[in-house]
Amino acid sequence: MSKLEDYVITIPDFPKEGIMFRDVTGILEHQDGLKIATDELVKCLEGVEFDSVASVEARGFVFGAPVAYAMGKSFMMIRKRGKLPRETVSKEYELEYGKAVIEIHKDDIKPGQKIVIVDDVIATGGTFKAAIELLESVGAEVVKVLCLMELKGLNGREVLKDYDVDSLIQYEGK
Amino acid sequence: MSKLEDYVITIPDFPKEGIMFRDVTGILEHQDGLKIATDELVKCLEGVEFDSVASVEARGFVFGAPVAYAMGKSFMMIRKRGKLPRETVSKEYELEYGKAVIEIHKDDIKPGQKIVIVDDVIATGGTFKAAIELLESVGAEVVKVLCLMELKGLNGREVLKDYDVDSLIQYEGK
Repeated sequence: MSKLEDYVITIPDFPKEGIMFRDVTGILEHQDGLKIATDELVKCLEGVEFDSVASVEARGFVFGAPVAYAMGKSFMMIRKRGKLPRETVSKEYELEYGKAVIEIHKDDIKPGQKIVIVDDVIATGGTFKAAIELLESVGAEVVKVLCLMELKGLNGREVLKDYDVDSLIQYEGK
Repeated sequence: MSKLEDYVITIPDFPKEGIMFRDVTGILEHQDGLKIATDELVKCLEGVEFDSVASVEARGFVFGAPVAYAMGKSFMMIRKRGKLPRETVSKEYELEYGKAVIEIHKDDIKPGQKIVIVDDVIATGGTFKAAIELLESVGAEVVKVLCLMELKGLNGREVLKDYDVDSLIQYEGK
């Protein structure tokens, strides 16, 4: 078990009743939290050949960027609509309530570019799936999906069953 | 002059006429861009005694988190309203059009905690000033403000004249 697990703060009934919110800021406020998290994520990528780390705004940036830095890779911000200044490609996807749109710069991807997606939490897998489809739509290859925490009760792995998925901490519930 | 300067993509008239938008994604898409940026930011912090790096959502996270990782410091996300799950303190500030609110967790700061704020761009200095006031309101001490790019024509340094401000790349205009 990762020491990180002791740093995660669990907030019951946030943002609504029945949800156990797993708060990564508990990791970040410890002096060695981000270091341990990044080094363990990097360890999961040993032997994986890839060009770039991509992360979804905004918490994903906190873990993806240090991994890209530590491994000497380029970094791609997958952003919400309207935040990127050059020509973008977009992907709309369903949330529990309503829809969301994520975007990347159209010319940031070269065909065959191998990408690892890094994020803080895998829950239903919906955001990861949208990010993968967005990246694949411009010719990228997603070689791994990696996150700090996995909420196993939400079956994200089933949605992402065609991909290599890895996480540092697993929770049984939702 | 930093090699990074060659990586910055300038987009004229974005988001509106007369603005030369300096796009940091040009840095991130180069394999050595984030590495050079982080290492140069770290160099600016040599000899600075501090406990934590803080960055404002969302682009700030991309540069602040690797600096915190590289220096073995804790990391604080300064977020937009409603994103943090525990009890927060907030600061409202003026934007060119309308207002914005930033927040931190109330119990993430210990009195006297020394913070370096890292962000991508210093423009008018308004967001930095709000972040400083927010951190100081809970007893933190902001020992340095550090960013990749500085738009000197917007006089951010004047607004932040009581603080130690540093940047890797300076542009004369707005």
